[in-house]
Amino acid sequence: MEPATDPIEALRACLGSANVAADAATRAQYESATFQTEQRVSAVVYPDSTAEVQAVVALARRFGLALYPISRGRNWGLGSRVPTRDESVVVDLRRMNRIVDFDEQLSCVTVEPGVTFQQLADFLESKGSGLYLSVIGGPPDASVLGNTLERGDGLGPLGDRCESSCALEAVLGTGECVRTGMGMFGPGPMSGLMATGLGPEISGLLFQSNFAIVTRLTLWLARIPEEFQGVAFAIKDPAALAPAVAALRELQQRGVLKANSFALWNPQKFLASIMQYPFAADGRALASPEQLLSHLPPALRGAHWIGMAALYSASKLHARADRRLLRQLLGPHVARLAILGRSTASWLRFTRPFAAKVLGMDPDQMLRLLYSESPFLGHPTKFSSQSVYWRKRGPKAPELDPDRDRCGLHWVCTAIPFEHAHLAKHAAIVERVALGHELEPNLSYLNLSERCLKSFAVIAFDRDADDEESRARRCHDQMLRELSDAGYPPVRLGIQSMDKVTPADTTHIELVRRLKRLFDPLDVIASGHYDFRHAWMVSDGDT
Amino acid sequence: MEPATDPIEALRACLGSANVAADAATRAQYESATFQTEQRVSAVVYPDSTAEVQAVVALARRFGLALYPISRGRNWGLGSRVPTRDESVVVDLRRMNRIVDFDEQLSCVTVEPGVTFQQLADFLESKGSGLYLSVIGGPPDASVLGNTLERGDGLGPLGDRCESSCALEAVLGTGECVRTGMGMFGPGPMSGLMATGLGPEISGLLFQSNFAIVTRLTLWLARIPEEFQGVAFAIKDPAALAPAVAALRELQQRGVLKANSFALWNPQKFLASIMQYPFAADGRALASPEQLLSHLPPALRGAHWIGMAALYSASKLHARADRRLLRQLLGPHVARLAILGRSTASWLRFTRPFAAKVLGMDPDQMLRLLYSESPFLGHPTKFSSQSVYWRKRGPKAPELDPDRDRCGLHWVCTAIPFEHAHLAKHAAIVERVALGHELEPNLSYLNLSERCLKSFAVIAFDRDADDEESRARRCHDQMLRELSDAGYPPVRLGIQSMDKVTPADTTHIELVRRLKRLFDPLDVIASGHYDFRHAWMVSDGDT
Repeated sequence: MEPATDPIEALRACLGSANVAADAATRAQYESATFQTEQRVSAVVYPDSTAEVQAVVALARRFGLALYPISRGRNWGLGSRVPTRDESVVVDLRRMNRIVDFDEQLSCVTVEPGVTFQQLADFLESKGSGLYLSVIGGPPDASVLGNTLERGDGLGPLGDRCESSCALEAVLGTGECVRTGMGMFGPGPMSGLMATGLGPEISGLLFQSNFAIVTRLTLWLARIPEEFQGVAFAIKDPAALAPAVAALRELQQRGVLKANSFALWNPQKFLASIMQYPFAADGRALASPEQLLSHLPPALRGAHWIGMAALYSASKLHARADRRLLRQLLGPHVARLAILGRSTASWLRFTRPFAAKVLGMDPDQMLRLLYSESPFLGHPTKFSSQSVYWRKRGPKAPELDPDRDRCGLHWVCTAIPFEHAHLAKHAAIVERVALGHELEPNLSYLNLSERCLKSFAVIAFDRDADDEESRARRCHDQMLRELSDAGYPPVRLGIQSMDKVTPADTTHIELVRRLKRLFDPLDVIASGHYDFRHAWMVSDGDT
Repeated sequence: MEPATDPIEALRACLGSANVAADAATRAQYESATFQTEQRVSAVVYPDSTAEVQAVVALARRFGLALYPISRGRNWGLGSRVPTRDESVVVDLRRMNRIVDFDEQLSCVTVEPGVTFQQLADFLESKGSGLYLSVIGGPPDASVLGNTLERGDGLGPLGDRCESSCALEAVLGTGECVRTGMGMFGPGPMSGLMATGLGPEISGLLFQSNFAIVTRLTLWLARIPEEFQGVAFAIKDPAALAPAVAALRELQQRGVLKANSFALWNPQKFLASIMQYPFAADGRALASPEQLLSHLPPALRGAHWIGMAALYSASKLHARADRRLLRQLLGPHVARLAILGRSTASWLRFTRPFAAKVLGMDPDQMLRLLYSESPFLGHPTKFSSQSVYWRKRGPKAPELDPDRDRCGLHWVCTAIPFEHAHLAKHAAIVERVALGHELEPNLSYLNLSERCLKSFAVIAFDRDADDEESRARRCHDQMLRELSDAGYPPVRLGIQSMDKVTPADTTHIELVRRLKRLFDPLDVIASGHYDFRHAWMVSDGDT
């Protein structure tokens, strides 16, 4: 038989016809994100193994295809499944959804790209495991590996997923397959247990990059604590933010609060998680941004910030010590400080009406969120991701699919020093820019470490409403630019912004460009994805 | 003026004559390690700035020099200051010893290569800082940056120094200077606060590598805990090791023991830290290895393992909770469990004679080691590094300098899963191989995480005694090989072993080779240092 001369035919011959889709309906799905995109998809392929991924890369090299690998395509707000480059072949890795290895005693698990947060949580539950994986605010059917590779964050211990993973298996743009960390020594007892191997460590090059298609990695899991307490509080006095931030930092420095274990939300973020924007029947917005805040539950009226945190304690006595120190350091600066542990939780369960009155909000919801089904304990949740429907006119669909439902969402991910002055400056930019575009500032902070907070600004809009699409885009671009200029560069980028950020260190850009050539000389993998290509193209002539 | 045609003259013109040494005495110093080496040094240069380092690299490229950068040259047991390649110009960075930046609130410090552990500890003390840097078991005048780049370990929180550093400034083999992590965006507020920047992260390539000369990095510091308790224990019943290891792992999983906060020492390791080998007057060794163990202090007689640990607690109540859980989980399996906190320490101070009796060892030494000057709290110590003189005949010099004193030392650094079966298997290999070469097995483990332990096997000998040099070398090589074959590959290498380890993943080797060419195309920096060169040379023909 002659080798196929048509790339789609060649892909079909390689993967089987059922695993190559080029029909209009499928392609359209992969061309839809939560904001306007122009990139067209030529085909979608569904390999089932590392060998098949290598075969796809080989064909891409032969035919000059532009591949765009996705794991589950739930990168809402940053591009969903849409490729960075026009006329791409999407490599959808959902069929590679095996949990390859699991070790309860050494608390680690090895997964393929298609494994979702829900799948892994269910797997651990079915094993009766005492471990959990920190989950994202995003949807339960997002890919664990995909989120990790994008340097996504989870709640609670080991939530800095990129720092809690190792032993990547990756197919380079050359078609070669490489194993990182201790994986370089083959599949021995140490391969999934350390971040680095011997000598130069290449793992870091494979996150937020387009050098390879990662087909497997090992993640470290956290132990379910003996005692868990959910914490909620509000900051009502603007002057209290400074001492509250200092108290939170000290609590983390002293080890009472773990990394990624508290979040500060502004009221708009909170509202977007429990309701949709209260449009009038004719679709008109509220007369003023202030009116919106009257929709807060009574207990939170007047709050500038709403805090949620988790205490992970090794014993009952530790839980008491943690609670006591938290009350002592944070208590004086916040309102409505509630700590839900085992005993409070059972008390709440039996005194719902009374509790509702005290808290001014639904105690069942509070219980689920802060204690029994807390995302801080690895329970995948839709609580946060449903806010994607915030400005969508009409009710939400029961099954969230913001790409299909033309929800509008931009995400601006930056980081700031863990200090009040930076937080205030950063928040003021986000607020001013959002309100300036007649959109809601939806803002939260998460403690990445005792040194810095990650910040997530959500720009939600309705893609079907008037001029919201273009307003939101301008809002996003301005916010990203102003935050960068103020010293808070992005930590993640949407596909629409890959050419809008220029590191000051030109040697760094040049080095990334050379590395791309080394790993993927024919540029077959995810062109433009985190490669600072605008700069690359400028200097491309001199090679 | 004509440009110099002699490289030494060119270096002198560039750095000043005082900062280029080519005399025999200086060169000899840089040719001495704690084991036999053959590499000769052509000159030593002492640049004082990043610009001067760049100038040196430029000259190396022009003249085809082999540079070998060292920070302080205290890499005892792994090669000290001696280059991997013959006829090298050593780039001694000791003059670059500035503490460039320090932030008490955000707990980080930026240092140049010449900054030592003692210097940084003194600096923090002079500032009245509430922070400390985890220290090494090695000498106080070792370089903080050098230790970090070699992926060295410290005791206590943030002891995994490579994972607790960021924002490297590095001069590549091309002569270019690059900044990693958030440093790519220039000197903004975020530059020293996060491990990664945006897009592919190159930092990992600069540890244990020869791609660049690192001239600066930021290290994260730990907060001095409100309550500190030193812990000591012994394991006398061989059957108790399994449950003790399980208890220690559980204590770490539950957060009571932090990473790098406990060490397990075998009795030979303990002895080497408090005495020298008890040679007879004529230099004869003991009749049997067992006789050595009678030199243990009474309290530790019969111990198979000696444990030291630290509890870092956020408050008095936390300290009580930590102590209680440690006693509960570990207590049943160990002997002589002692926990020295604030109150016990003062009690000990006032009851020395009685305490000596109870403990069977010097209470002052115990106090210093476990509490008031604990290396677990960032106090640089000679306690561990003096063991380099273990087999040296005659008394130690007051100022430790094992290179000068012809102490013999090989170090075998590996890692094992945090499980009893692996520990037992690993320890048995070390013991058998050491005793087989009539040397002492000197072995310790440190908890890198709840998943793995790092292991340090010390092979101490006297370079002036009979055949010890060659015996020790054979012992080292066999130990490294047997441990690798058993699934425990090295995590650091001595300069004599750079060509003795072959990762199973040949693509990985090939990739490191290509990366070396990209970063240092003329091979001017530290040839052979962690570049798996033997494999490189084999495939060198095909480019």
